[in-house]
Amino acid sequence: MEPQNPDYKQRVREILDEAPYLGWLGVRLDDLGPGWCRTSMEITEKVHQQDGFVHAGVQASLADHSGGMAAGSLIRADDRVLSIEFKINLLRPARGEVLHCHSKILRPGKRIMVAESEVFCRREGEEKLVSKGVITLAVVPGE
Amino acid sequence: MEPQNPDYKQRVREILDEAPYLGWLGVRLDDLGPGWCRTSMEITEKVHQQDGFVHAGVQASLADHSGGMAAGSLIRADDRVLSIEFKINLLRPARGEVLHCHSKILRPGKRIMVAESEVFCRREGEEKLVSKGVITLAVVPGE
Amino acid sequence: MEPQNPDYKQRVREILDEAPYLGWLGVRLDDLGPGWCRTSMEITEKVHQQDGFVHAGVQASLADHSGGMAAGSLIRADDRVLSIEFKINLLRPARGEVLHCHSKILRPGKRIMVAESEVFCRREGEEKLVSKGVITLAVVPGE
Amino acid sequence: MEPQNPDYKQRVREILDEAPYLGWLGVRLDDLGPGWCRTSMEITEKVHQQDGFVHAGVQASLADHSGGMAAGSLIRADDRVLSIEFKINLLRPARGEVLHCHSKILRPGKRIMVAESEVFCRREGEEKLVSKGVITLAVVPGE
Repeated sequence: MEPQNPDYKQRVREILDEAPYLGWLGVRLDDLGPGWCRTSMEITEKVHQQDGFVHAGVQASLADHSGGMAAGSLIRADDRVLSIEFKINLLRPARGEVLHCHSKILRPGKRIMVAESEVFCRREGEEKLVSKGVITLAVVPGE
Repeated sequence: MEPQNPDYKQRVREILDEAPYLGWLGVRLDDLGPGWCRTSMEITEKVHQQDGFVHAGVQASLADHSGGMAAGSLIRADDRVLSIEFKINLLRPARGEVLHCHSKILRPGKRIMVAESEVFCRREGEEKLVSKGVITLAVVPGE
Repeated sequence: MEPQNPDYKQRVREILDEAPYLGWLGVRLDDLGPGWCRTSMEITEKVHQQDGFVHAGVQASLADHSGGMAAGSLIRADDRVLSIEFKINLLRPARGEVLHCHSKILRPGKRIMVAESEVFCRREGEEKLVSKGVITLAVVPGE
Repeated sequence: MEPQNPDYKQRVREILDEAPYLGWLGVRLDDLGPGWCRTSMEITEKVHQQDGFVHAGVQASLADHSGGMAAGSLIRADDRVLSIEFKINLLRPARGEVLHCHSKILRPGKRIMVAESEVFCRREGEEKLVSKGVITLAVVPGE
């Protein structure tokens, strides 16, 4: 896949840095390229649900936003991306120290992009796939 | 739909109160009955994405957890509910003061429940449907 | 919702009549208006899965296509609609004589529409909701 | 993944052969192992939608049933699998001669399985990913 914006790395970073909610979650951008990125976040009690696992909504937030960042690597400088829908399957209880998310674009469309995100949970050195999501995004042209 | 737990209202409240993430979001339980509930949360900047709208992941978190609370009203006293998957469609940009969520059970199964959640955003007195989700939950029997 | 094509009823009928697969399934258009439609099909053994129920894929096909027809009632004369994704929950086993599908538009966008379809199964005079789906469609402008 | 039924290959074949709808679609089982299978079907006009592409519902049917067959390879001899929900993204228009489907299990649970299906379309010797789906299945214990 070919980036259309030579400064796409900076652009993807902004999609993360300018979103207050992601700042609160503590999401970091670990690596990125055209059509993909890797993010992570520390697991603390504040993102737990009632049984001590990472809340499904937090996993979804990470999967959705990382998918949007993967899409953001392929848009033109003035375009924006907006999620229009996503779906996530919670495959295993997420208990551990860190969440890692690997996102990649399945369909690099001009108007519609589709991203896939895999969320892994690291616990005592072992990493397991805990959820997998797919995100459909609209590319909104800049004025 | 018939609650199996006479103290189901207390049980649903616990599903909310014991989840730290929901406390951070500031989610309140406004009303509930067998197979349904209504929740809400104030919108503050901390739940924004990069364009000033409520983050899709926050809407998903509210839709998912409220769906789980609706399911929680129908389980036995010692059972738990866990989301196994959900899907949400972001129908309109969510900008305003308050999110309201109406959740109801579509399938009150013994092992699998399906809930539907509608998220409304109130802005300057007007309320609009901003997202709609469906959540599949497993009923985990108590020991 | 306002139709943009005065001949929208004829247009919706074409979306059904020109799809060979729907002809094989035996889908009929029972009623329609701006942003909604009702369809049905007889259940015969040919649409069964291995346990004698209507196959999930057949329910999905009916839900998807009816959702597309509901969207078709709102597009301009030369536009087309294409499903970009859908999700369906199979709520109860579908065994009976007839499937009925009620579809309506949740988001009547210019570029993206979202439809919701409820599939009912009639058996010995009683009708039950057997599945519910949501369909995201792209509006493809005519040349 | 470990099959629990020594005759799992025969069992998977039955899940295909005993479903009349799949017979009508002309779906073949091309290969299988514990937790995965590959299927295919010829594309003829009867599975087209109104623009000459393979209908989304047909792609969904293939993705769903193949996912169920992948799950069927891991169940005990008397158990059955039933789809409880699925979601599919239509990534590219499906026009060509043959559909191929690769399904694998993401979560080999005792009560809940999750399968992933990729549908490829072959046209003039070239094969492209046209859709990707995820299927949640319930394992129904035999009596």
